[in-house]
Amino acid sequence: MSAAPAVTFWFEFASTYSYPAAHRVGALAAAAGVPVVWRPFLLGPVFAAQGMTDSPFNIYPVKGAYMWRDLERICDAQGLPLTRPGAFPRNGLRAARIATAALAAGAAWAPDFVRAVYHANFAEDREIADPAVLARLLTGLGADAADWQARAETPETKAALRAATDEAQALGLFGAPSFTIAGADGGVELFWGNDRLEQALAWAR
Amino acid sequence: MSAAPAVTFWFEFASTYSYPAAHRVGALAAAAGVPVVWRPFLLGPVFAAQGMTDSPFNIYPVKGAYMWRDLERICDAQGLPLTRPGAFPRNGLRAARIATAALAAGAAWAPDFVRAVYHANFAEDREIADPAVLARLLTGLGADAADWQARAETPETKAALRAATDEAQALGLFGAPSFTIAGADGGVELFWGNDRLEQALAWAR
Repeated sequence: MSAAPAVTFWFEFASTYSYPAAHRVGALAAAAGVPVVWRPFLLGPVFAAQGMTDSPFNIYPVKGAYMWRDLERICDAQGLPLTRPGAFPRNGLRAARIATAALAAGAAWAPDFVRAVYHANFAEDREIADPAVLARLLTGLGADAADWQARAETPETKAALRAATDEAQALGLFGAPSFTIAGADGGVELFWGNDRLEQALAWAR
Repeated sequence: MSAAPAVTFWFEFASTYSYPAAHRVGALAAAAGVPVVWRPFLLGPVFAAQGMTDSPFNIYPVKGAYMWRDLERICDAQGLPLTRPGAFPRNGLRAARIATAALAAGAAWAPDFVRAVYHANFAEDREIADPAVLARLLTGLGADAADWQARAETPETKAALRAATDEAQALGLFGAPSFTIAGADGGVELFWGNDRLEQALAWAR
């Protein structure tokens, strides 16, 4: 039996449905025997390319109202706490740069950091754009906050996050979370949404 | 054990994801012991209220490209034929009026007619706005085409379809398919999307 190809998990810290996805992708992928590649990217440029300068959940408030209720049901079923954030969407740029640096360095706590940022935003209603909030999350994971916040702001890290966002657009991503699987034929299969995680894993297998 | 409340299945004939939903809602609901109320409505006024004068899949073509691939995977898994229609979205007004009249009259073939219209649009790439196409579908089901096409254009039927669309908007629907379940407390639970059918049935139970 050949090893299953990896599923790339594309996430953005402002994305509501990425919150439950980040909390279940690791366990479900492990159970399926599928490796996961965690890839932060930025939705802002992706939405801007579609002519949107805000979250579609704010542009289309009827859809937004549904999303919050739907997310509540999903979090309830998953046993995840949810507090509707006082600000939405929050700017996840700094957090995405930290995650980019940590994942590039192979830091074992990187997925925990990702989940911690989502928890801060969507369970505790904290301002994830605030460096002090991010520093506390890093410290809580035993990471050197000052060191990682400096690494996050290097030209290399900034370029890597821009490249991830460019790659996401080239792959046809238009929202988060998304999952991609590279095929043997050179093509890439795209799945969009927390509710497509199971299908993406089945595709990889 | 008290009977499960009904799930109302809201559909629009131009809606791509309503096609697989229409083909599975009956069997899944029967297996779950949940009654289904079939309710055609029109997405045009719903989208217009959100400031959209075309399908979001045309307004956001990157999302549209994904939708066609996603629909292909869904139809494959369900064993449904799919041909990308030469025109999208097609005007489903006449078909929706026929379905409204047939459902109001309690015609046993009404769900079959709904599925036949979706099949014509998305499997056979036929123009469902064409009265001749609709007449053949009715005849194929053993219904009197001229009679039902006349009933479809009465003021009563037109008003009933308008009322359904108004009710859909009042319930916070913003797309199709959608599923609603009336709660004992007077509230209504809304689920959006073919991929929420199982959750809607579980909620009703």
